This record gives sequence, structure tokens and C-alpha cells, in this order.
Amino acid sequence: MAVATATIKFLQTPTSPAWVEQALAHLDVILLDHAQCERKAAGVAMSFINRYPSDGDLVKALTAIAQEELAHFAQVNQWLERRGVPLGPLPPPPYGAALRQQVRSVEPYRQLDLLLVSALIEARSHERLGLLGQHISDPELAHFYCSLMASEARHYGAYWVLATERFPRPEVEDRLIALATAESSILATLHPLPRIHS
Amino acid sequence: MAVATATIKFLQTPTSPAWVEQALAHLDVILLDHAQCERKAAGVAMSFINRYPSDGDLVKALTAIAQEELAHFAQVNQWLERRGVPLGPLPPPPYGAALRQQVRSVEPYRQLDLLLVSALIEARSHERLGLLGQHISDPELAHFYCSLMASEARHYGAYWVLATERFPRPEVEDRLIALATAESSILATLHPLPRIHS
Repeated sequence: MAVATATIKFLQTPTSPAWVEQALAHLDVILLDHAQCERKAAGVAMSFINRYPSDGDLVKALTAIAQEELAHFAQVNQWLERRGVPLGPLPPPPYGAALRQQVRSVEPYRQLDLLLVSALIEARSHERLGLLGQHISDPELAHFYCSLMASEARHYGAYWVLATERFPRPEVEDRLIALATAESSILATLHPLPRIHS
Repeated sequence: MAVATATIKFLQTPTSPAWVEQALAHLDVILLDHAQCERKAAGVAMSFINRYPSDGDLVKALTAIAQEELAHFAQVNQWLERRGVPLGPLPPPPYGAALRQQVRSVEPYRQLDLLLVSALIEARSHERLGLLGQHISDPELAHFYCSLMASEARHYGAYWVLATERFPRPEVEDRLIALATAESSILATLHPLPRIHS
């Protein structure tokens, strides 16, 4: 699977076939959750800008990411409308909260952890949206998912670059391994509710 | 002044010449504050989406607004970079917090008030960015401000339409008068720090 290979440097464990099966069996719920993921990802990018308003390079990179996430949010909402799925809230899986628990509370470690957790979430999204692109039978929706993959790859790359520009490379690499191990461990048991990060 | 006339239906009192004088005398600070205003406006649009996730028309309208505000944020930051003004936080004027105090805490009144307060902030921004466009001596920066005006006008129109589609017209009109009166009263005394909403 080309998709998993491309992100394997970030992710410790590839997504299981059980997730693909669950996702394909509940595609409308996955689309609804995907919309929430894009909305939250835009919010994450904006929270970096709010938190580090004097860091011009960070502000510039994350403004671009927030814009792209919002564009994707709008696109996924169009797909929901087209499929007749009403918009609405959806209880999130434990993934996000569990990852946030890994973030150290004191700066500058907090910034490093936030950047790497964001990179990991984007890398996992990249992998899973790619799997949807490979396996969804509707060719147009499959194409949509494949088209999103390039952005997600750019996003985790951007978070990674921001981290390596602000912290010593060995520190970033060590911390990435620790956080990526935690990330894979959180996903080791498939969450019963179908979600992008179940 | 054509600018003030265009928004006079929303705004009870036009901006004083003293504000224009203060703004022109501290243009770099105004630009920095303007960037913050665009960032916050994107955040406000997103907070509506988070608060009312099942309202498809609202989500669609405010996703578009959030995207535009982020695009303006990036543009203003480019102007700051070009003028050599470092990015950074800036203490806000009392305007936003004072307006938020006018928002009733119980739904559906909360939603009506949030929509109308947002419409008023956009209307005031429209008026004041227009004044900057009229009075700034740098023709390129003046042109930039004139070009932003159309968006700001669309934004207050969008918030107004969302309000009138969700609440009886007389209720919206009465509440707008009350909130617009409060808004003009907050700005009646020029805040000593130069800001878009000083």
C-alpha cells in the first residue's frame, strides 16, 4: 500500500484492515466525522496563531493551513448535502483527547509537542483518507479523497518543518518517536463508533 | 462621505474625524490591529459553526466568511512584512468586550444578539476601512483598503440575512436599534490607543 509507506516515517503502525471495513460500512458517518476533522484542524491551526502571534513564519504557514482546512470543510459539507446527510454534531472518538494528554504543559516543550501531535494527526489523516480513496466504490468520491491526500501530506510536512526549525533535530526526532508510539497505541483497539480516527 | 452613508442603516453614529486623525498618525499600529481584527473575525465565524453545527445554511455562509477573513489576515500580514512591522499581540480596545456584554445569555436571544453584534462589528469595520481607503496617502495601501470594503459589506449583509431568516423581522429590527445604539455609545469617546475600533 503506497499510502501507508509514504507516512510510515511518521506513523509507527499502519491502519488495520478492520478500520477500512468499518469505515466503508458507515460511509455517511465517516463523511460527517471527516467534516468535523477539517473544522477542528482549522481551529488547531488558528489556535497556534493565537498562541504564538509574534512568530511570523509560523503565522504564515498556519494561516495557509487553516485556509485549506476550511476549504476542505466546505467541500466535505457539499458531499454531505449531495448525499442527503444532515449536518450535525457527532461525539468524537477518544483519539484527540488522548493525544492532547501527551502534550507537556510547560513551554517550549508544549510548542514542540503541539507541533508534533498536529503532524501525527495530519499524517494519520493522510493515510486514512488515502485508504478511503483506494477502497470507496463511488469513483467520484474516491477521487475526492485521493485529491485531499496531497494537502494532508503538505500539512504534516509543514508541522514537521516548523518543529525542526524551532528545536534541535535530535530532540524533535526522539519526541516524535515517543508521540508516534502513543498515537499508534491509542488506535491499537478499534473504537466501536466509526470515525476517521476510530 | 459615501462610506458612512452606505452603512448608516446599521450604525447609529458615524465615525468622528478624530478617529481618522488618530489612525493616520499611527498607521503601523492600525495595520497590526487590523490583522488581529481579521483573525478574530475568522474566529467568530468559526465559533458560530461550532455552536450551531446542525444549521446547514449558517454553516455554509459562515465557512465562506471565515475563509475570506483568513485571506484578509494573510494580506494584512503581507503589508506588515512589507512595511517592516514585526507581528505581535496588541492589547485590544474595550469595544469587543463591551459589545459582548450586550449579548443575552439564553437561546434563542443569544443567537440573535450574536448575529447582530457581528453584523454591527462588520458594518463599523466597513465604514472605518473605507475611511482609511479615502484618507491614506500611500495610493497602493489606500487601494487595498478600498478593495476590502466590498467584502466587509457582504459580511454584515450575511449576518443580517442570517438573523432575518431565523427571527421575526420586527424583533430583529428592534434589537438592531438597541445594539447599534450601544455600539455607537461605546465608540462615543475615542479610546486613547489607536485601534480599528478605538
